Amino acid sequence: MKPREYELDSPIAAIATALVPAALGIVRVSGTNSIEILSTIFSRAATLRAARGNTLHHGWITARDGSRIDEVMIAVYREPASFTGEESAEIITHGGPAVVLAVYRRILEAGFRAAERGEFTLRAFTNGKTDLARAEAVKEIIDSRTDLARGHAAERLAGNLSREIETIRTMILQSLAALGVEVEYPEDEDTVKGAFDAESVQRSRERIKRLESAWAAEKLLRDGITIVLAGQTNAGKSSLFNTLLKENRAIVSDIHGTTRDWLEADADFLGIPVRLYDTAGIRETTDTIEAQGVTRTKDLVSHADIVLYVIDSTTGLTPNDRIFLEQEHKAPVCILWNKADHPDTLPVPDTLTSGTIEKPLIPVSAHTGEGVTHIMETTRNLVFTTTEKESSEGIGELRGPAPGSERQKQALSAARTFLEHACEAEQAGFPLDAVAQDLEDALGALGEITGETTAEDVLDVVFSTFCVGK
Amino acid sequence: MKPREYELDSPIAAIATALVPAALGIVRVSGTNSIEILSTIFSRAATLRAARGNTLHHGWITARDGSRIDEVMIAVYREPASFTGEESAEIITHGGPAVVLAVYRRILEAGFRAAERGEFTLRAFTNGKTDLARAEAVKEIIDSRTDLARGHAAERLAGNLSREIETIRTMILQSLAALGVEVEYPEDEDTVKGAFDAESVQRSRERIKRLESAWAAEKLLRDGITIVLAGQTNAGKSSLFNTLLKENRAIVSDIHGTTRDWLEADADFLGIPVRLYDTAGIRETTDTIEAQGVTRTKDLVSHADIVLYVIDSTTGLTPNDRIFLEQEHKAPVCILWNKADHPDTLPVPDTLTSGTIEKPLIPVSAHTGEGVTHIMETTRNLVFTTTEKESSEGIGELRGPAPGSERQKQALSAARTFLEHACEAEQAGFPLDAVAQDLEDALGALGEITGETTAEDVLDVVFSTFCVGK
Repeated sequence: MKPREYELDSPIAAIATALVPAALGIVRVSGTNSIEILSTIFSRAATLRAARGNTLHHGWITARDGSRIDEVMIAVYREPASFTGEESAEIITHGGPAVVLAVYRRILEAGFRAAERGEFTLRAFTNGKTDLARAEAVKEIIDSRTDLARGHAAERLAGNLSREIETIRTMILQSLAALGVEVEYPEDEDTVKGAFDAESVQRSRERIKRLESAWAAEKLLRDGITIVLAGQTNAGKSSLFNTLLKENRAIVSDIHGTTRDWLEADADFLGIPVRLYDTAGIRETTDTIEAQGVTRTKDLVSHADIVLYVIDSTTGLTPNDRIFLEQEHKAPVCILWNKADHPDTLPVPDTLTSGTIEKPLIPVSAHTGEGVTHIMETTRNLVFTTTEKESSEGIGELRGPAPGSERQKQALSAARTFLEHACEAEQAGFPLDAVAQDLEDALGALGEITGETTAEDVLDVVFSTFCVGK
Repeated sequence: MKPREYELDSPIAAIATALVPAALGIVRVSGTNSIEILSTIFSRAATLRAARGNTLHHGWITARDGSRIDEVMIAVYREPASFTGEESAEIITHGGPAVVLAVYRRILEAGFRAAERGEFTLRAFTNGKTDLARAEAVKEIIDSRTDLARGHAAERLAGNLSREIETIRTMILQSLAALGVEVEYPEDEDTVKGAFDAESVQRSRERIKRLESAWAAEKLLRDGITIVLAGQTNAGKSSLFNTLLKENRAIVSDIHGTTRDWLEADADFLGIPVRLYDTAGIRETTDTIEAQGVTRTKDLVSHADIVLYVIDSTTGLTPNDRIFLEQEHKAPVCILWNKADHPDTLPVPDTLTSGTIEKPLIPVSAHTGEGVTHIMETTRNLVFTTTEKESSEGIGELRGPAPGSERQKQALSAARTFLEHACEAEQAGFPLDAVAQDLEDALGALGEITGETTAEDVLDVVFSTFCVGK
């Protein structure tokens, strides 16, 4: 398989870490003669050339004029025991942008070509070191925004989806083999009876369906959701915003204060990546600038996946609250009955949980943290009532294999459709070789997931979404 | 030497790469039993425990419940052949923030303590793997903003400053030894004569002075300068801004457009790190928002190290240009006679280069790139006329050792002062043991640079400026 036009074993190089000041950086190389070429710019050339696989070597990357560029460790990998399956190396440098770039430029000068996006992983795939689903999981684990998402990607990287696909393919292959016997020897009465094992095909279909239904939750883990905190001025939105951020293990907890209109930050709601917005109070105003803020709040609300509407429970429901809550909103709205720990907190009016409003309501306290877990659970449930029903088993408890990309989901759907068609064709009394063709098409669709039957242009698309250096 | 209170060999861990999506990340550990502890969370525990130094091992970091966290390579280093001089390891992970954090958290859970800033380098220093000047160079190379700055730091990392300090110390030690003989055996007439070798002390002083004078250029390489492009609307500032960025090898060439008031970007002017600003046109205006822009431009000009004032050569000098150029400015102003390639370009008026204005003037063209190198050279010369005179030998040509920090420069100054005092004392006929004390103090000051005589609190200050993971 040779998915792209350029040579698949030429020496390539890429910066594999971010160009941001840090303690260490990595420049990565792979391809024929990598170590030999690298040795020409290394202070201990002979040692490096003689290095065995999986060993580390200390020295300096040197400039053309012999001056020192950086003191590095070089990790040497020998074919085929490397990520790409080729001779390759990782040059561990100091981590500043200038020094990483200087090492990288020197490496290009020595004879390496700048790697394309995903080219290292493409080579790993081409050299049989990984299948396509596991290759995609490399990207998924890098892009994961919560620990739960990371965990799902890690399982795919370890091959749980690939193994499930292989199991299903084996089942279909057996069905096909039985048919094959039938097609070749139609005169043999004994084999005609029950040659098409409808029950076995049905079992394959069920397993595919289970994988398909897991996609909604996977997509959510990948894309995350937008949650907007709305409510009147002084309802306590900003305190709740801070409490929600404090109580969860957000990966990036920097708060981006843009204007006085809103704040936004990344949060982790029981594994779901959340972009959380704290907005200006919603109320009629004559102040022009404040009016702009209110307009932006309405805009944010209209793009939210979930709206958390905050009411000050010591003030109770105001006419403005009622207007907002009785309006139609694209996203589900959940009411937060704030300051629930306050001695002056009022009882929840019936109108909020029945009649024209009828929303989920959670007593909360930014001060004590009361209700925060409840908010996260309710959020998860709300998301799942609005996405495909079959995912409602609960994202946190998801176990077992699941697809990691839209591409894989589509291939699953195609495979299932072929299997359904096979069953219908058989029942309608179509010739068995037509039924066999359906089963082969299903096999082909499943093979696209692991890369056994994937077209070159599809591979190109898949790997071009990777970052350089991967 | 035990500069901090906490234990110096306990197992520590830190994330050594930036928490930004990238292909690879590194978590670093060091200290007693590092490999043993790491093996408890590694899929191939026995292999890791038995691993020899400078070898690489493939496997999975596993969670408490046995689930997979990430597929990694572990680089094993055995005492004393490691950066810190201790048993240590680098865990090369996939590069997403979630996955790097998950591995790091698991490592802390396994029994490592989060490392303090600079703690790995502190251990390297404490264990005699590096001296203090070279340890500081680790930080300098990471923080370097241009390749020239990186090169100077690399030479210090390789020990050129440390060797020079050692040479000077040896010279002073010899002078001191000669005196020592004198002090002990004053009755020996032969040794009195010429016991204080003033010429040798003078040579030490000269070498120290040379190092001191190199600091101005080093500081410039470290801190960089601010250059502001000013001039009237339509003088061609923005095109020049882009041309200046395109023509140089800026490390970070992202342009930060903040408002319509100004743009800023990092540039590299012959090795000098430059923060370059493109401002709004300076002119009287009645538009409020534009007036704000003009105010900000004046503010930027007042904080600049150099102002490049752009004039459209097809329009020529306007009254507004004249007002700006005749004003007093804190920073040197250089005139760019723009659109010099245009057929309608006017001759340079005498007033610009003589009389009340008299500024350096460079014909330039944003279109053809004409004059860009000239701008960079003029900038360099302007910077050096305004910083200490002794650095004017030219930053690009700087060769040989130089101090890398204010601390080192101050120690050099102290050492020189002690040597001068020794000469004066000897000439004034002070007792030789008083002169010897001066020489010893000079030795002590020089020893602070390489860390041989550095007080613990100074070490604390030095290493606390490092990043975590270094």
